[in-house]
Amino acid sequence: MSYQSNFQSPAIGNSFDRQMMQQCLQLARKAIGKTSPNPMVGAIIVRDGKIVGKGFHPKAGQPHAEVFALREAEELAKGATIYVNLEPCNHHGRTPPCTEALIAAGVAKVVVGMVDPDPRVAGGGIERLKRAGIEVIVGVEEEACRQLNEAFVHRTLYKRPFGILKYAMTLDGKIAATTGHSAWVTGKESRHLVYQVRSACDAVIVGGNTVRQDNPYLTTHQVAAHNPLRVVMSRRLNLPEQANLWNTDEAATLVFTEVGSNPELQKQLLTKGVEVVEIELLSPLSVVKYLYDRGLSSVLWECGGTLAAEAIAQQTIQKIMAFIAPKIIGGQTAPSPVGDLGLERMTEALQLERVTMRAIASDFLIEGYLSNRSTL
Amino acid sequence: MSYQSNFQSPAIGNSFDRQMMQQCLQLARKAIGKTSPNPMVGAIIVRDGKIVGKGFHPKAGQPHAEVFALREAEELAKGATIYVNLEPCNHHGRTPPCTEALIAAGVAKVVVGMVDPDPRVAGGGIERLKRAGIEVIVGVEEEACRQLNEAFVHRTLYKRPFGILKYAMTLDGKIAATTGHSAWVTGKESRHLVYQVRSACDAVIVGGNTVRQDNPYLTTHQVAAHNPLRVVMSRRLNLPEQANLWNTDEAATLVFTEVGSNPELQKQLLTKGVEVVEIELLSPLSVVKYLYDRGLSSVLWECGGTLAAEAIAQQTIQKIMAFIAPKIIGGQTAPSPVGDLGLERMTEALQLERVTMRAIASDFLIEGYLSNRSTL
Repeated sequence: MSYQSNFQSPAIGNSFDRQMMQQCLQLARKAIGKTSPNPMVGAIIVRDGKIVGKGFHPKAGQPHAEVFALREAEELAKGATIYVNLEPCNHHGRTPPCTEALIAAGVAKVVVGMVDPDPRVAGGGIERLKRAGIEVIVGVEEEACRQLNEAFVHRTLYKRPFGILKYAMTLDGKIAATTGHSAWVTGKESRHLVYQVRSACDAVIVGGNTVRQDNPYLTTHQVAAHNPLRVVMSRRLNLPEQANLWNTDEAATLVFTEVGSNPELQKQLLTKGVEVVEIELLSPLSVVKYLYDRGLSSVLWECGGTLAAEAIAQQTIQKIMAFIAPKIIGGQTAPSPVGDLGLERMTEALQLERVTMRAIASDFLIEGYLSNRSTL
Repeated sequence: MSYQSNFQSPAIGNSFDRQMMQQCLQLARKAIGKTSPNPMVGAIIVRDGKIVGKGFHPKAGQPHAEVFALREAEELAKGATIYVNLEPCNHHGRTPPCTEALIAAGVAKVVVGMVDPDPRVAGGGIERLKRAGIEVIVGVEEEACRQLNEAFVHRTLYKRPFGILKYAMTLDGKIAATTGHSAWVTGKESRHLVYQVRSACDAVIVGGNTVRQDNPYLTTHQVAAHNPLRVVMSRRLNLPEQANLWNTDEAATLVFTEVGSNPELQKQLLTKGVEVVEIELLSPLSVVKYLYDRGLSSVLWECGGTLAAEAIAQQTIQKIMAFIAPKIIGGQTAPSPVGDLGLERMTEALQLERVTMRAIASDFLIEGYLSNRSTL
């Protein structure tokens, strides 16, 4: 079953079903940014048209959404319908399989948003439920379900975290003035939205240049309690001794560098609580592989054009979020959002798919997906 | 009276009035691109709720819209209401004043979209009509009326043609690949819209680089009969001997160069019907001054970044039309839409006003206005 096979499917379920599934997604979102490597899942149990149980998966290692909902519903679960945005699990992990819990509770019907994206297990939970005589409907609000867990789906299918490249540029395509000065390209509403995007991601990555030039915080500025892991890539570790990112009270910071780079600074960073990881050949791919192994699902790239181009070339970017401010700064040499990709003809340009545009106060946000190409 | 004093005014007139004024604008648009230095004007005469006469101004030197409408209405104009998107003229030009014609025809009421933008004459026509006992309403659909004739208004107020900078860039801000290859950034629907924009302009300007690199036609590709004057700016006249622009069968071409540049090519161009104008110090400002004197109202800049930056710096650009294609080409050195403006801090960026955005098939078009700054 391919990841997008039902992307444009007609509406499945009745309007009550779709409403309940949207409520599951709202519940699931309560744990946004906190569930990796697990998905965000919400569950609602309905009996005689009334909600008798609700739950969401709060964090890896804790019970699944269905379990919380069953606990709340108690004996009312018997003969009831449960809505859940992802196929219930059918395997023993850190928690027992949800399918068995649902069967034991005697639910009559299970309405599923989307099947498990892992092709090795997809449909197994649904099959188990059906064999137990439970009615199962699959694909209610499927597009919204996939959207919410796009990072989890990507992680599952491709064994890599889902990469988002975010940049803010002027209407003439510049992320800074010729001098490098960039505060601010977009307005505060756009920057606020970026904080929200950060809170939904597991890590945010910049290169050494951004640290030296902008001295960013890369936090959510308290729009959400959850801060992503702040990641810096610097081959030679030629970074300042003082930087906002080295203050790890508010959020954790992880610095990737090459083996043996600047041992003096490495020591200083460690005393400040900054984690330092040495990699033989530092690259976007080696970094995301490391972050995958660490259980991360989503990575937000807020880097400059050079690193962005490397990240695109190594297929670590799946989605682009381009904020565009209606202003002109000028400058052929002023920094651009994406460095050299080796594309010599306009016809070779990387086309975005599923593109959307919206106004954010006086700015615009264009979002789209890069296809998973085998070669650039 | 300032040019935008009533820009955000509440609706004036009743819904029938506004409907008639919109029809005047539709009539006026029939001569789009053909009336300079005059405005586009449409007129409708209504008696007992029925249209008895219509007209539009087809071309400078020909009668005004009101005259055509009065001719059609004949004696039914007596006691009727006339709608016209611009204040009727009150002076003897190449044609007698429309105010006198309206008074002589005995119209009872004149509904005007906007007053004459020339502060020396604004309101004079309205005053004359009122003195003759005619009821006058002013400001019906004023914003739409100003929009249609924005070039004429600018020309009248500032003694310069209205300049539009149009460019097409990728989502990473590039108008070409690093090699200069640019065919095509946007899709055919966007390019078709550009042909329509050309047909509404009096001239389209490029620099020598665009001629050498892209060998453009700069015509309307028959989406409209009217082609703008095609203008090339080249200081040293180091242009190819063969170029699509030198074929003047379909549209006229005017080349600006500096005095004495490449006399050999000048001769060749003249034999092909290309007009050559030598200017002491060639610059966007010197060119638009020349084009103003020649009666042009609107100029579309389709040039590269270097010339675009000069044109912005010399305040010859009033409006920006940025087409954005949802694709990534990459390249820090790939050409940008606007060259150096000498702006060193992001806070100095030129803010656009009255910004709008719309989708053109899979592309986006962001439009906005530069304010008339005294200095950059």
